[in-house]
Amino acid sequence: NSKPISFSSNSTINLDQGDPTVFEPYWRKMGDKCTMVISASDSMSYFSDAGNLCWFLEPKLADAIRNLHREIGNAISNGRHIMVGTGSTQLYQAALYALSSPEGTQPISVVSAAPYYSQYPEETDYLRSGLYKWAGDAYKFDKDDGAYIEVVNSPSNPDGSIREAVVNRAGGKLIHDLAYYWPQYTPITHPADHDIMLFTFSKCTGHAGSRIGWALVKDTEVARKMIKFIELSSIGVSKESQLRAAMILGTLSHSYQNFSSNIPDNFFEYSHCLLAERWKKLREVVERSELFSLPDYPLKHCNFTGKFSQSHPAFAWLQCKEDIDSEKLIKAHKMMVRGGVRFGVEPNYARVSMLSSESVFNIFLQRLSAIGNHLSVMNRGP
Amino acid sequence: NSKPISFSSNSTINLDQGDPTVFEPYWRKMGDKCTMVISASDSMSYFSDAGNLCWFLEPKLADAIRNLHREIGNAISNGRHIMVGTGSTQLYQAALYALSSPEGTQPISVVSAAPYYSQYPEETDYLRSGLYKWAGDAYKFDKDDGAYIEVVNSPSNPDGSIREAVVNRAGGKLIHDLAYYWPQYTPITHPADHDIMLFTFSKCTGHAGSRIGWALVKDTEVARKMIKFIELSSIGVSKESQLRAAMILGTLSHSYQNFSSNIPDNFFEYSHCLLAERWKKLREVVERSELFSLPDYPLKHCNFTGKFSQSHPAFAWLQCKEDIDSEKLIKAHKMMVRGGVRFGVEPNYARVSMLSSESVFNIFLQRLSAIGNHLSVMNRGP
Repeated sequence: NSKPISFSSNSTINLDQGDPTVFEPYWRKMGDKCTMVISASDSMSYFSDAGNLCWFLEPKLADAIRNLHREIGNAISNGRHIMVGTGSTQLYQAALYALSSPEGTQPISVVSAAPYYSQYPEETDYLRSGLYKWAGDAYKFDKDDGAYIEVVNSPSNPDGSIREAVVNRAGGKLIHDLAYYWPQYTPITHPADHDIMLFTFSKCTGHAGSRIGWALVKDTEVARKMIKFIELSSIGVSKESQLRAAMILGTLSHSYQNFSSNIPDNFFEYSHCLLAERWKKLREVVERSELFSLPDYPLKHCNFTGKFSQSHPAFAWLQCKEDIDSEKLIKAHKMMVRGGVRFGVEPNYARVSMLSSESVFNIFLQRLSAIGNHLSVMNRGP
Repeated sequence: NSKPISFSSNSTINLDQGDPTVFEPYWRKMGDKCTMVISASDSMSYFSDAGNLCWFLEPKLADAIRNLHREIGNAISNGRHIMVGTGSTQLYQAALYALSSPEGTQPISVVSAAPYYSQYPEETDYLRSGLYKWAGDAYKFDKDDGAYIEVVNSPSNPDGSIREAVVNRAGGKLIHDLAYYWPQYTPITHPADHDIMLFTFSKCTGHAGSRIGWALVKDTEVARKMIKFIELSSIGVSKESQLRAAMILGTLSHSYQNFSSNIPDNFFEYSHCLLAERWKKLREVVERSELFSLPDYPLKHCNFTGKFSQSHPAFAWLQCKEDIDSEKLIKAHKMMVRGGVRFGVEPNYARVSMLSSESVFNIFLQRLSAIGNHLSVMNRGP
């Protein structure tokens, strides 16, 4: 488990986890507009909304989530059950529980197309559940009998591509992890409409410390089982975090309801520009280096911004053109990143966070340039 | 899953979960003294304390926890790893994970002396883990080969008794769930000193909605595995809840550092008086009814208050003197309670929350009196 380390010009920088500190200056500039005040006697009960199926969900958060999806146009939330989790991490596990059968003699297979999110295998298997079991790359899934769960992560972590289910067999159940389907990362081409859709506050606004995720779920029985999971796992979800998320997400919606072209006040416009600028700088460095390549993303029309744009993913998926372990190579230059093997592909790939603070991002660009220069010199020989 | 219901003179009251709303008036009276203010740019990162083994633990919370245990004298916290969880529920599961062996061919048996906390069996088995498996009442545990985990819940939920490990065999590993080892519930006779001790904000101060629990852990490898569990389960714990808990627990410590006999300002004195008064009223009703009995608790010296006192547990463990299903009988009188079978004992027992609001508690006393009168009339015949 890698930790961030305070950096000098010589110390290691952490680009491993995707800690979204890039958005902090925006929220600092908001000053008191989203400050939460909570007194000692507020929200003491286990219950938030006793009459609701999801009895631990703060109604204000549910409202903020529905409004935001309606305004961004990235997912259908009307007529869906909304449930809150301790990050989408908890909701992913709740969905596995809900989609598996306690009567099954064999655990249900869980697959996702490689490169898949590096945590899916471990989050699926760490308790050696008899209900579900990681079965690897969806492209290579060859068990032809009955039920399976496919996790569709779109846009994909690590590679930023837009994904659809790939197995498409009878008995398949789908979890759509849409953590990055927000306008700063990718054009919003349509409102997503799937059985189970997962989102997270961490990647929407950058509030990773709050551990708030949410799920939009069509089927009532699936929703009921997911709620049961969260009851048994943690008896609900922090009220403080829910109320803060409701306030912050609510402010976003409000800023769009009163839309103005005053860019610094619009979080998604601001963060879209910021990531576009980072990607431009990164592509310049990568093109000069001749050692690495990056995926290309097609130009698409974003219904939210009304403009054509490429994707600017939260991670750079670097492929080394030579047969080199990219994680090791980059680590030798004092940058912690995550190698391809963790994502089910070759070690010449590495995932690098694009969401670091400005100063860390600039050091990253400098050091990445240096790798290219260094190897070019080596290749030319003495 | 029972939900609390708004009540009129005729509606059902919920005494099932132990929602600790009894303490709310105290915190309301505190006014702004423990109000938390958090701006939109605070605590956005996944990390709280990157250099610490428990990298998601807010240092202020760790300090508040150590200070509180030192002042109350209920547990040794010096030299122990402190870790935070989404309630002690998540930490219980983290401890099972940490104490089991991934190399084991058989899941390790998990036992607890009956009547045991009703959630242990389900929290242990809901994922059908290959690592650990619920094996029931510790008194009846007869597997004589190797490792097992015994959960010692003291004071016990549901019956308020002081517990020690009962299996005491080689290969045994212990989890001490000390959720109720606070001065309002029971005399503090010594500082607890065990390998793994679990506490929760919910039962200490009544802030159940925050979902904050903590563990004091001796062994570094066990601590490391518990942290790994929380990483995989939820990538850490709400910063907002941690900061609020730090502030509220910190205020308690502070009020004792500047000890005064001004009772309303001292949370533990206040809540001790409040529960003592409720227990006095309940015992009067139970003695008159002749249908139920309650456990007796010995008089013990409390090192914290400096006085002799009985226990005043968070739950009343009602035993019906006749061969009647107590949960059904009480439910027929519009009170939701939890029957003995859920705790591994006979159905003539029922657990009733003593932590409801004042108005609900008074309705409980009235209705319990009515049951006694009703049955007495029936027994005398026409």
